[in-house]
Amino acid sequence: MKEINQIVIIGSGNVATHLSLALKEVEKEILQVYSRTAANAKILAGNVEANFTTEPEEVAGNADLYIIAVSDDALIQVAERINFNNNLVVHTSGSATIDVLKNFSSNYGVFYPLQTFSKSRKVDFSEIPVCIEANNIENIERLKSLALSLTDKIYFIDSEKRRTLHLAAVFASNFSNFMYSIAQKIVQDNELDFDMLKPLIQETAEKVQQVLPEDAQTGPAKRGDEMIMKLHVEMLKDYPEYQELYRILSEGIGKMDFD
Amino acid sequence: MKEINQIVIIGSGNVATHLSLALKEVEKEILQVYSRTAANAKILAGNVEANFTTEPEEVAGNADLYIIAVSDDALIQVAERINFNNNLVVHTSGSATIDVLKNFSSNYGVFYPLQTFSKSRKVDFSEIPVCIEANNIENIERLKSLALSLTDKIYFIDSEKRRTLHLAAVFASNFSNFMYSIAQKIVQDNELDFDMLKPLIQETAEKVQQVLPEDAQTGPAKRGDEMIMKLHVEMLKDYPEYQELYRILSEGIGKMDFD
Repeated sequence: MKEINQIVIIGSGNVATHLSLALKEVEKEILQVYSRTAANAKILAGNVEANFTTEPEEVAGNADLYIIAVSDDALIQVAERINFNNNLVVHTSGSATIDVLKNFSSNYGVFYPLQTFSKSRKVDFSEIPVCIEANNIENIERLKSLALSLTDKIYFIDSEKRRTLHLAAVFASNFSNFMYSIAQKIVQDNELDFDMLKPLIQETAEKVQQVLPEDAQTGPAKRGDEMIMKLHVEMLKDYPEYQELYRILSEGIGKMDFD
Repeated sequence: MKEINQIVIIGSGNVATHLSLALKEVEKEILQVYSRTAANAKILAGNVEANFTTEPEEVAGNADLYIIAVSDDALIQVAERINFNNNLVVHTSGSATIDVLKNFSSNYGVFYPLQTFSKSRKVDFSEIPVCIEANNIENIERLKSLALSLTDKIYFIDSEKRRTLHLAAVFASNFSNFMYSIAQKIVQDNELDFDMLKPLIQETAEKVQQVLPEDAQTGPAKRGDEMIMKLHVEMLKDYPEYQELYRILSEGIGKMDFD
């Protein structure tokens, strides 16, 4: 099995950035960063001691691995302009299937880190699950070996399951962050400090590390406390969208029964 | 100022339990626990070395403080059957006003710990914000002194602001937990392990300890990735309620602009 040492990063967004930094930290060589935006490419390349290009045609042909971390919309467009010389190519998408890459190299796969990345925030990669898929066993082994240098939370799941996981992750992360945002909006509009809610948010997330969410549910909707729910709906009269959302979510919690 | 030492707890639910345990730990004496459910009263009383009663009329009259931690629906019903001898009485409700207690004692207030409590889980009270309100300055000082024995996160806010905070907390905690639950349902139905989502949930909550939620938002709706959103809606065809919710939440994220 040929170890992966030299890597080209395609993309310069949140996933590309955090993955490059983590790989650099475990002594992998980032050969090159490609991004259509020169400024972003330059910053990331600088941070991982790589060169950069904004031209797909100028991407180096001799890497052990190409990691395409761009939006699903751009994935095929950028892949078809790069010559991978049949080296191993992976994407990092939760929702794109493995097959989107099969026309571009005879060695391809998926390397999906299940986490929410923001450039401003350092993450501990050893806590991040990585989902791996590849076109053959050797490539799975190579990707596994690479992933093991970052984390021991490695999962081998197919494209359909990864898609499902990604959908669940949207609820677990993006939508729960939206709930925090609505809370932020409400406290800010009333001259209260969002800091007051931080321990609550932290504990809510920590609780489900031990207890399943369905068993961790608390609050007026769970207790069926109609008086408070009515009051809350009334208080939301100036936020018609959140008022409607409050009703729908409370009703959903009331009906929740997963057994 | 007369220090609060002897306390009667009215209620035996999550808040009553955690607050009693925390107060016992800082050397306060729990005189008595009242609950209409004998079994619950007995368990809690046993844990804090108190006696217990299921009769409001048998509640001891000589406590420094009565903490009523029952549902808002039951609050007045239980208070009007107890003789507080004009000693200090507080409730722990986020939404009930301070005034609901004014007919029952000439010393009254609110002691609202802003946290999600589950009996199965120990919480660190020093991380919990406590919101205090009382009918006069001396009672505020007495409650402040008590609160300081538990936490240094003390806030003095009136009933209206506390209500607003509670509403925000429902979004930040109860509704985000419901998002986790939907994610749990989706992974379970597809034979994936909820464990895979735990680091993501943790990081999502940790991120907003540093960055405001509106700036921490990630995901397909934030990026305007129509292709993935369409796919996700299609994947949710067997969950009509969550499908509708996905649409509403994605639209809400798309429109989010708090500045």
